[in-house]
Amino acid sequence: MKFLAKIIVSLKEGVLDPQGVTIGRALTDLGFDSVARVGTGKIFSLEIDAESDVRAREIASDAAAKLLANPVIERFDIEVAR
Amino acid sequence: MKFLAKIIVSLKEGVLDPQGVTIGRALTDLGFDSVARVGTGKIFSLEIDAESDVRAREIASDAAAKLLANPVIERFDIEVAR
Repeated sequence: MKFLAKIIVSLKEGVLDPQGVTIGRALTDLGFDSVARVGTGKIFSLEIDAESDVRAREIASDAAAKLLANPVIERFDIEVAR
Repeated sequence: MKFLAKIIVSLKEGVLDPQGVTIGRALTDLGFDSVARVGTGKIFSLEIDAESDVRAREIASDAAAKLLANPVIERFDIEVAR
């Protein structure tokens, strides 16, 4: 069966996010006064052929740990759909 | 009220995604034979102070259109939570 896995990679709590800070400042300059804090991350969508959604999630998690996320400063979440 | 808006920016259908192609090849080299297609994107989380979730979504959409997404090649989705 084909599954679509989304891997969301974001910085761990406490890791500086200078890109987010810069975007926050730019939004303030553009008049977005109600935006307080901006965080940035990456999203990867993988088409996975697997026998179950549990197995697809395992494959996605393995791919994230081995290639897509830097475990020192990043964490990842996975969503799997048909 | 404080809301957390997630803005997911991805390439429009038909736009080449060389980063995704490269990651796909790397995953194949690492033995992930069941992964077929890889797409990449960016995710931004914004803390927004607004009177309602509808208003928070409007602000996030405005920020995405004005600063975070390139409308020529990118599309965006927004998720809002308390």
